[in-house]
Amino acid sequence: MRWDDTTGSRPAVSGTIDSAALQLYAFFVHKLPVGILGASGYAGRELCALLGAHPGLELAFAAANERRGETVRIGGRSITFVAPDDAPLGDAALIFSALPHGVSGAWTDRARSAGAKVVDLSNDLRPGSSDRGVPYGLPELTREQVRGADIVANPGCYPTLVLLALAPLLREGLIAPGGTVTIAAASGVTGAGFTARHDLLFGEVTEDFRAYAAGNTHRHLAEMRAMVATFGADVDLIFTPHLLPVARGILATITVPLLHPLASALGPWEAMYAGEPFVEVSAELPSLRDVVRRNVARISATAAAGTRTPTLVVVCALDNLVKGAAGQAIQNANLQLGLAEPAGLPG
Amino acid sequence: MRWDDTTGSRPAVSGTIDSAALQLYAFFVHKLPVGILGASGYAGRELCALLGAHPGLELAFAAANERRGETVRIGGRSITFVAPDDAPLGDAALIFSALPHGVSGAWTDRARSAGAKVVDLSNDLRPGSSDRGVPYGLPELTREQVRGADIVANPGCYPTLVLLALAPLLREGLIAPGGTVTIAAASGVTGAGFTARHDLLFGEVTEDFRAYAAGNTHRHLAEMRAMVATFGADVDLIFTPHLLPVARGILATITVPLLHPLASALGPWEAMYAGEPFVEVSAELPSLRDVVRRNVARISATAAAGTRTPTLVVVCALDNLVKGAAGQAIQNANLQLGLAEPAGLPG
Amino acid sequence: MRWDDTTGSRPAVSGTIDSAALQLYAFFVHKLPVGILGASGYAGRELCALLGAHPGLELAFAAANERRGETVRIGGRSITFVAPDDAPLGDAALIFSALPHGVSGAWTDRARSAGAKVVDLSNDLRPGSSDRGVPYGLPELTREQVRGADIVANPGCYPTLVLLALAPLLREGLIAPGGTVTIAAASGVTGAGFTARHDLLFGEVTEDFRAYAAGNTHRHLAEMRAMVATFGADVDLIFTPHLLPVARGILATITVPLLHPLASALGPWEAMYAGEPFVEVSAELPSLRDVVRRNVARISATAAAGTRTPTLVVVCALDNLVKGAAGQAIQNANLQLGLAEPAGLPG
Amino acid sequence: MRWDDTTGSRPAVSGTIDSAALQLYAFFVHKLPVGILGASGYAGRELCALLGAHPGLELAFAAANERRGETVRIGGRSITFVAPDDAPLGDAALIFSALPHGVSGAWTDRARSAGAKVVDLSNDLRPGSSDRGVPYGLPELTREQVRGADIVANPGCYPTLVLLALAPLLREGLIAPGGTVTIAAASGVTGAGFTARHDLLFGEVTEDFRAYAAGNTHRHLAEMRAMVATFGADVDLIFTPHLLPVARGILATITVPLLHPLASALGPWEAMYAGEPFVEVSAELPSLRDVVRRNVARISATAAAGTRTPTLVVVCALDNLVKGAAGQAIQNANLQLGLAEPAGLPG
Repeated sequence: MRWDDTTGSRPAVSGTIDSAALQLYAFFVHKLPVGILGASGYAGRELCALLGAHPGLELAFAAANERRGETVRIGGRSITFVAPDDAPLGDAALIFSALPHGVSGAWTDRARSAGAKVVDLSNDLRPGSSDRGVPYGLPELTREQVRGADIVANPGCYPTLVLLALAPLLREGLIAPGGTVTIAAASGVTGAGFTARHDLLFGEVTEDFRAYAAGNTHRHLAEMRAMVATFGADVDLIFTPHLLPVARGILATITVPLLHPLASALGPWEAMYAGEPFVEVSAELPSLRDVVRRNVARISATAAAGTRTPTLVVVCALDNLVKGAAGQAIQNANLQLGLAEPAGLPG
Repeated sequence: MRWDDTTGSRPAVSGTIDSAALQLYAFFVHKLPVGILGASGYAGRELCALLGAHPGLELAFAAANERRGETVRIGGRSITFVAPDDAPLGDAALIFSALPHGVSGAWTDRARSAGAKVVDLSNDLRPGSSDRGVPYGLPELTREQVRGADIVANPGCYPTLVLLALAPLLREGLIAPGGTVTIAAASGVTGAGFTARHDLLFGEVTEDFRAYAAGNTHRHLAEMRAMVATFGADVDLIFTPHLLPVARGILATITVPLLHPLASALGPWEAMYAGEPFVEVSAELPSLRDVVRRNVARISATAAAGTRTPTLVVVCALDNLVKGAAGQAIQNANLQLGLAEPAGLPG
Repeated sequence: MRWDDTTGSRPAVSGTIDSAALQLYAFFVHKLPVGILGASGYAGRELCALLGAHPGLELAFAAANERRGETVRIGGRSITFVAPDDAPLGDAALIFSALPHGVSGAWTDRARSAGAKVVDLSNDLRPGSSDRGVPYGLPELTREQVRGADIVANPGCYPTLVLLALAPLLREGLIAPGGTVTIAAASGVTGAGFTARHDLLFGEVTEDFRAYAAGNTHRHLAEMRAMVATFGADVDLIFTPHLLPVARGILATITVPLLHPLASALGPWEAMYAGEPFVEVSAELPSLRDVVRRNVARISATAAAGTRTPTLVVVCALDNLVKGAAGQAIQNANLQLGLAEPAGLPG
Repeated sequence: MRWDDTTGSRPAVSGTIDSAALQLYAFFVHKLPVGILGASGYAGRELCALLGAHPGLELAFAAANERRGETVRIGGRSITFVAPDDAPLGDAALIFSALPHGVSGAWTDRARSAGAKVVDLSNDLRPGSSDRGVPYGLPELTREQVRGADIVANPGCYPTLVLLALAPLLREGLIAPGGTVTIAAASGVTGAGFTARHDLLFGEVTEDFRAYAAGNTHRHLAEMRAMVATFGADVDLIFTPHLLPVARGILATITVPLLHPLASALGPWEAMYAGEPFVEVSAELPSLRDVVRRNVARISATAAAGTRTPTLVVVCALDNLVKGAAGQAIQNANLQLGLAEPAGLPG
């Protein structure tokens, strides 16, 4: 059923012909039913929207406990939320769980028992939070573990951002041993979830900007550290997130002490991500505008002038709801179900 | 003429009584005339607004070449711009130059020749750009050089932010020698000036966020380095600014490798800035909202958890148009003219 | 130079001399203690901020039930909320109630019983909601009823906006009898209060704009109609409010069929508001930027071209938290307590 | 499952099957080459983005005089602008002109001479500006004139908004004769074009809202009046546009005096637009969020309570760059070239 099987090559991600080919496939082939648990949050609604345009998957149910029975318009379509307990788990080939951390784990077990494959968007099964060894769904790093897997832990948005930015340096051992990697990241408000909190009101966020969880206290740091450790790197991470007055998009500016100066600042990224449909490497600094509503991470790297320690400044941006959540979840689901990896994803 | 002379103590900055005392002073005492060159830009207009409420200074002229003859409303008052060549330089006790870099220097000479004291808001006379040795107007560090001075180089907004944040560590030699200090800073769009550029249009900036001048290429870096050097510190600076979708405010998140862990993360700042009217030190992380429209820098510091190198994360915020430009310029002017340092400044 | 009302003359609202005179007064004269009920909402916090700069009033208590015991920073000062039941009502010369509609009325009775004068910012005592005949606190229309009054109903923000815009036409009988006055108004999100609602989250409001309460279903309409009726006008009102992606400010565009064309479109406003410190009449169309953080309404009027019915388009803007709530409340309090009407208000 | 127009039935606009059918068509059928003049503005770039996903059209050239030679990224693709004089006009089956008013007309003649069909997005050929009788491209009103036409005048964004909202009432003669129809409209900043003007800078627009062209002085009014006149309606129009702090989207709130009360407020719209793929009629008030990035107008209507004259409040929203410009231009091009009307358009 994998339409790119015969050549083994990865399909180009964009361009009308490939897109048409995907649609053609969908037109003749039975679509696979998938379900969503936690469908009313930002990630859940983004899943609904993206699945509405997917050529090989169709929505079997969208469950949301507090808003069960409600009908909402998402991307021009109407979707009625069911209660999770009423969701026909067994009808789905794969279930996305966008439930809150702590709640999601148990539901992924129920989904597996019902025979569905699972993509868990919470951090319950991720490295740093769980030692169950569930494959980590960052396909650019872990594609072969995800392909065909029954259950996948979908990475957090910040870990996706930071790991895609650092992986080429980690893989080639280019970071100065014992050095400190400094990560200043900023996120749009949807990163905090669809939660009615006073501090997320428009009147509080507009014209503001703030750091939070300074001093390495953000929950996602354990996940980053666990993944960095898999490369055998001996580095300190300093991670400081900030809240931006924008709806969506995250951007990290990462300062890395190098073992030695690089011949080409972009070289490691160009080498590792050549042919990757969802990573763009560019000499131009990325901005949120370049990536929102797209399933891509966009990365640039610049050597810092006037320092004694050779230092690289790496900037990476992606849409926290797409490549940082729902888009990546579908990228994983495609791999788990044997579909073309880029199927249904906005490149 | 210094109304706090008799006690030698610095007046408290806020509270109705002190404010009333300042007004009382203004009511009975002749106000000193001041002029503005470059009055139509963001800093120039902020100067107009702040001077409108100053108890000891009054606006003699506001010059703006391209908009000469135009009348604008600023803070509820009408101001008509004159051509710089028509400005009565000799009538002013002090002239603020908010002219562009490269243009300002020559005008400050003209102003001095006409007998006026000068605050130059451009970088023409600042350390890193000039070796004329003009006093650097960051009163919390250089108060005694500014007091009574004929001409002062008003710092850039980013250098004010970074130097106020780092000075306590620099002064006490707490930064690990040879270490790398990483500065991720973000600025509202008024930091780019009142310039009709496509990339500053609302339609381009809203919902966006981007780094610029990555790799230590920002013009303000020389100024920061020159001032850091005055402390004898042996450090690399990595400075990466970002453009925020807000009108005003700048915030820096600075990561500093320490010589040794600190007993109290806030200790150095509390010690150095005790009694300073325009620096707030707080365990709570500062946000733009805390500082906009006020002449204050607000600083927090947190020890990073889980690192081998003892590392501090320092966050500092201020309003780029007030403490980062016009407010600080008035703070300097007050010192130059023998007025109370906080006179007319929103604390 | 007289600031008080013994001469019957209204002091000029801005300019350093008058402001200094007010401060001088405050410096020598005992300040009157005032209290706030419902101090943690947007209007309550604005009251706290404005009172911090008032020359004749000082805050005796700020009560907020849900946040009792919390200390917040407002305008550079720290304020600790008390429980309303613990508030020393009897210590205050005047109490502002910014409690919710339905709750406020009973508390104003308690405040009166304790001997305090009252400004009620809820709609519990306003025309259209109550027939108690409490003076309506729109000083430009009802100054003499407010002066010295024990209790005043502070108008809603939309009624303030619309009534100040329409009063000159109503007073002179210039609106075509039986005609329809169409009001399209738009408000920043603080108009909806400091309420943790999903639809007020930044992620929902940014880049959006919507009408609400279309078809004359907004609660403030009764208040407008009751006040319009006091002029004996025979008109239909169509009022459609909209939600703007801004924090503060409201603007109404009002279309009025005239009895006959006007010699001067601005004439009626210039005549009625000459000398009013807090109403600005201008040929230039007002914008939110002209009025935010100021206690002013700014009004323009333009004759519509190319219509058979002579029609006027009146545009009015004000800050919903200042002239639309807290600022106007202080304006009323000043009149009730015999202080200068503009005391402590940003013109 | 038929997508084309041979049966006279209109295809459903959304849903995966139809979308797949369109893609299938594109996959097997030769795409028609189209060109863009004025490709670097907001409408031009939106055309580039939409054409990138069109199953039956492909971009032959994108001309932009001032930015000729520049390569830009639009929707994940790279496009290099050519000079208009170098554009191969004769290679295109159809040319979109998004050139400025006054300039566009002459270029549409050149395009026609080269044998291409034309959609002119300027107002040079529209009713109210031109008496050449060029078909007006508002397909929901003028579909049969557009089908197969050589040249079409694409409506302005405000006229599209207002005419779609009013047409059902106009067609059925439901507006009170001699009555005044009041239109308060608001537009995101892209409506003002990609022009480096001081008043469109982020720092000026954020947190602001203002009316402009009050008193019926907006250029689009002639176009609206000319089209309203085609229905034989005897009404005054009062049109007041406003500038919103959002990037895209326009919304009009229209107050209409009725000949008599309606049995159903939505009735006329439901009757006229049943089956229209790009008009949504809903009891729920539309918001910008419902329509941005989609080629739809969304309309609601509510009877006003408490008035003597029966009055309807009609609210209509659409994306000024899609249904208000580029999307509608493609809708027209599809009809001119014999393609399925909804081909390539986001429903």
